[in-house]
Amino acid sequence: MKIVSYRQNGRDSFGAIEGDTVVSLSEVSGHPSLASFVGSPEFAQRDELVKQGQTVPFSKVELLPVIPEPEKIVCSVRNYMDHHQEAIASGLKRELSEFPPIFLRVWRSQVAHNAPIIRPRASESLDWEGELAVIIGQGGRDIAVEDAWDHVAGYSCYNDASVREFQFHAQQIAAGKNFESTGAFGPWMVTADEIEPGRALTVQTRVNGETVQSGDTSMMIFSVPQLINYASTIFTLSPGDVIATGTPAGVGFSRKPPRYLKDGDVVEVEIEAIGTLSNPVKDQA
Amino acid sequence: MKIVSYRQNGRDSFGAIEGDTVVSLSEVSGHPSLASFVGSPEFAQRDELVKQGQTVPFSKVELLPVIPEPEKIVCSVRNYMDHHQEAIASGLKRELSEFPPIFLRVWRSQVAHNAPIIRPRASESLDWEGELAVIIGQGGRDIAVEDAWDHVAGYSCYNDASVREFQFHAQQIAAGKNFESTGAFGPWMVTADEIEPGRALTVQTRVNGETVQSGDTSMMIFSVPQLINYASTIFTLSPGDVIATGTPAGVGFSRKPPRYLKDGDVVEVEIEAIGTLSNPVKDQA
Repeated sequence: MKIVSYRQNGRDSFGAIEGDTVVSLSEVSGHPSLASFVGSPEFAQRDELVKQGQTVPFSKVELLPVIPEPEKIVCSVRNYMDHHQEAIASGLKRELSEFPPIFLRVWRSQVAHNAPIIRPRASESLDWEGELAVIIGQGGRDIAVEDAWDHVAGYSCYNDASVREFQFHAQQIAAGKNFESTGAFGPWMVTADEIEPGRALTVQTRVNGETVQSGDTSMMIFSVPQLINYASTIFTLSPGDVIATGTPAGVGFSRKPPRYLKDGDVVEVEIEAIGTLSNPVKDQA
Repeated sequence: MKIVSYRQNGRDSFGAIEGDTVVSLSEVSGHPSLASFVGSPEFAQRDELVKQGQTVPFSKVELLPVIPEPEKIVCSVRNYMDHHQEAIASGLKRELSEFPPIFLRVWRSQVAHNAPIIRPRASESLDWEGELAVIIGQGGRDIAVEDAWDHVAGYSCYNDASVREFQFHAQQIAAGKNFESTGAFGPWMVTADEIEPGRALTVQTRVNGETVQSGDTSMMIFSVPQLINYASTIFTLSPGDVIATGTPAGVGFSRKPPRYLKDGDVVEVEIEAIGTLSNPVKDQA
């Protein structure tokens, strides 16, 4: 099942995509948000609930980020070997570590499918990073690697767009990874039952139709279960938490010369079995 | 005015401390949380509102972190020169940069005054960091340095307790800075009108009564207005957002041999004109 978060008539809701309509699941499930729904017993009854919900034409809703306000967005750093190698080749002094390097995004940095990714006035070094996003269903602390798949509600596409100058100018990655309206997340969540755990999915990023990143999720250094295990060692994962699993090679800052996104560009992240996230790029007003 | 967030009879609220009572401000202001209150026009009417609120004995309320669920917690890294120097002396390869290094905490890592800071099973390297916390009132984006003080609602004490092993083992600071129940925040917010902007305040951290950190806020490398300006370049600051402004020298990991917190310790952060934040340390169950 494909599930979107959306706004209609000023109200936030979520629902399943059925053909060219969205079946609202908010009223029939009693949950205000997709984050609340995926952590609840009602989530297992979604096939029944979808028969009862009211429909809206897909064209009438304004999409929101798949989880508009996750409690936590945990992002993996240099988690594809080819991207790790291009970062080293670009002069970054980083070693592979025994543990997965992570950083955090704030929900305010997110943006929906088709909404503009904003290039800030503060820097021109806005870069793309196409990634598989994992959405946590049942939460938990200290989740064992062998139990981790049970905590995945579904998958989506993420563009962890990064302002490289701010990522590097003070030796702390968080600043460049949290600019407002840079973390594109969508278009929908595909529920976990539709994708076999650990299946290799191709991940492609295109800028104005040109393929700039191409990899598949089998190239991850730390697997989805290892990332869930590590994050849940630190804190309790909550329903709707998001894990962005890292990006393959081909980012703009590793090119010679570097290539960055500019006003008018369109950037797409396509992941096999999920769909295509598309965002225009706009300069900050 | 001193304002606390608290729970009473299972309900979260906030109110002003008057002698040994708390005057509830939630009902009379119409705001569900202190974060919402500090960003509203009602905040300016707090002296009138406090005459109308119901009182509760201070001893009957369970304190919460001053802002229990800030939208964002922005933390400053090596922002006191003496702490920067001790970090270098401990082998960290870091340079002073033109911009303030920051990382993010999630609200789930927070803990209230008097509640236990939890030493995780995953590591024994739990360390203290006493800090001045700044609480944002009116939010905004791209806030100029000269306007920044107008966006401060008040101040509190923060213990940015850090799990050093996780802070360093994957070259990304966020993991060690986000363990559940490590970010102590309290006991109350002192409203900004009581402390002249930029006034040097002594910051002391004590472990079991022994002073381990002693500095004052004039030693900051990046000032409160500079931190607000930098953070708001990245994203819109929202009412109730927290800026933890960094810690002076004297942390445990820079000692020879290193000294870490253990079950049964009591750690206090005392800041002049604000008060003392106290927390016992407990091992994760």
